[in-house]
Amino acid sequence: MTMLAHADPHGDSRRPEEPRFERKLRDEMERRWPAGADELSALGRYALLPPGKLLRPLLTLACAEAVGGAPDDVVPAALALEYLHVATLVHDDIIDADDVRRSRPALHVAHGVPDAIVTGDHLIFAAFAAIGECRPAGVTAEAGTAAVMALATAGSDLCRGQVLEARLVGDPAAGVEAYLTVATLKTGALFRAACRIGALLGGADAEQAERLGEYGELLGIAFQIRDDVLACTLGPEATGKPSTSDLANGRPTLPVLLAYEAGDRATRRRLAAALARRSAGPGELAEFRAMLVATGGLDLARARATGYGEQALARLSTLEASASRDLLASAATWAAGVGQ
Amino acid sequence: MTMLAHADPHGDSRRPEEPRFERKLRDEMERRWPAGADELSALGRYALLPPGKLLRPLLTLACAEAVGGAPDDVVPAALALEYLHVATLVHDDIIDADDVRRSRPALHVAHGVPDAIVTGDHLIFAAFAAIGECRPAGVTAEAGTAAVMALATAGSDLCRGQVLEARLVGDPAAGVEAYLTVATLKTGALFRAACRIGALLGGADAEQAERLGEYGELLGIAFQIRDDVLACTLGPEATGKPSTSDLANGRPTLPVLLAYEAGDRATRRRLAAALARRSAGPGELAEFRAMLVATGGLDLARARATGYGEQALARLSTLEASASRDLLASAATWAAGVGQ
Repeated sequence: MTMLAHADPHGDSRRPEEPRFERKLRDEMERRWPAGADELSALGRYALLPPGKLLRPLLTLACAEAVGGAPDDVVPAALALEYLHVATLVHDDIIDADDVRRSRPALHVAHGVPDAIVTGDHLIFAAFAAIGECRPAGVTAEAGTAAVMALATAGSDLCRGQVLEARLVGDPAAGVEAYLTVATLKTGALFRAACRIGALLGGADAEQAERLGEYGELLGIAFQIRDDVLACTLGPEATGKPSTSDLANGRPTLPVLLAYEAGDRATRRRLAAALARRSAGPGELAEFRAMLVATGGLDLARARATGYGEQALARLSTLEASASRDLLASAATWAAGVGQ
Repeated sequence: MTMLAHADPHGDSRRPEEPRFERKLRDEMERRWPAGADELSALGRYALLPPGKLLRPLLTLACAEAVGGAPDDVVPAALALEYLHVATLVHDDIIDADDVRRSRPALHVAHGVPDAIVTGDHLIFAAFAAIGECRPAGVTAEAGTAAVMALATAGSDLCRGQVLEARLVGDPAAGVEAYLTVATLKTGALFRAACRIGALLGGADAEQAERLGEYGELLGIAFQIRDDVLACTLGPEATGKPSTSDLANGRPTLPVLLAYEAGDRATRRRLAAALARRSAGPGELAEFRAMLVATGGLDLARARATGYGEQALARLSTLEASASRDLLASAATWAAGVGQ
């Protein structure tokens, strides 16, 4: 197994990759979502392919292998995680009126809101069909049921996070705790499911599956913070969406919340005004970012990502040494070391 | 067991009811979706309660009992069918811009499109969680997995039907075959799943589960035709939505398609114009309905419902006599006998 360190669209060169896993996932996605199928499948294909970083399904395969399972046997379950992730992106882009996704028109822009709603639903159903069909030999029926339940729980957590997040819009005083709750529900939950499902279907005992689930949740929170930090420091060519997306949506990201906590009254007023404006020119964006640097909000957010990444790493201590364990460890280190 | 014949909001008095099952389902829904819970649950409660006719979950309980299972053991699976059904109503109302549902403001009107999208998603996840938790003693793990797969398949069929139906909008020449494909996917699929899942979790063998699935699909098609016929003949106080809903959405329902097939050139032109208008005053609606009667389209549609209802009935022949078998039979007779 090779652990390549490719150029990363997020701007660092340490993104955990596993070409063997990625090839498996891409090939299977192409096979299951061929060009020229019926219209609904074509819409699904537009949303899924070419794929993004495939981080969640990679985690599923790595966790399965790390506990002694055969990655080939859990590929459908790994795809289920990607389907569910992409379904939420499709629906979130409608909700947030985000027009660009993975440097292309979002599905609701390319095909209209009705088809985008239905495609998101279809991807959710496809996720449960994929996880339902995934019954590796030697894995108990209880583990299979637990995998279905883990996916369903993660899905409802995502919805809960989406509703909570909407309530924080425009409020730079929402507080770090509220942010972390949203990050746990919106990002942590699916990472948790990705790892827990991989472990369960890889044959892990309940305790190991729980520990890898915790790893996933902590990694997911670190990853979300990392994403928020990078959205403040990188351009659209790196993130695949406009630099002003979070600002235009009035999302109080962790750097903003920490900047608000640390800032003086004038800074707080300016942060609130920036979030309330719901649009930003290049000058305003630069001023906004400068505030996040000057208050230390950006560095404090980086430190939080590091903390969560380190906690995630600690959850791997009981795994035997293996290439997949190394992959999981490198994911934690990568998320922890944002922009450093 | 009592088989009551209540006043029916759809205007006849033979709707199959089973108070014992309905009470179980209502009580369990109230218990699982209490007032005063978190915001996402409150949105789910708004969509689910007070419940509609609960036809799909009633079928699940009846099929389970008809094959010798205990209805109490499959209540969560029965609720899953209702959750999935309501999820599609919530999303469809956004797509169709229908503002009224069950004589109340649709969810997207009462709480906005973003929350309605998320609530629909949450109900889908809740459906899979409910079916995942439903493992009656003595039922094999394979049956449990098959139940999850049946729900996922039905969900994707619903999506496929939604996309196809959108392509027929405004076209009175779309043809009966296209209509039946949509009805099979949009309505038949979930009725099929309701019956198949009840049979599987009630302990049926594969053949019996398949036959009850067929019963469900045929019943669902009959039910959809019945719904289309009644929308043409009854007022909003009976159907819970404006009389002009199908017409305003340009939906070519079966009576319209059959009227078009049977009509002369002038009738065809007027039908096409009515669907293209996307709105209807009381006078226009009356004229439109008169065309469906005069061409025989309405009666031909009724005959189709009768045919599907009778086919459904025939699928029950191998079941032993029981009150639940009678309930299933009465559902088929009811759907078959629309407005007669």
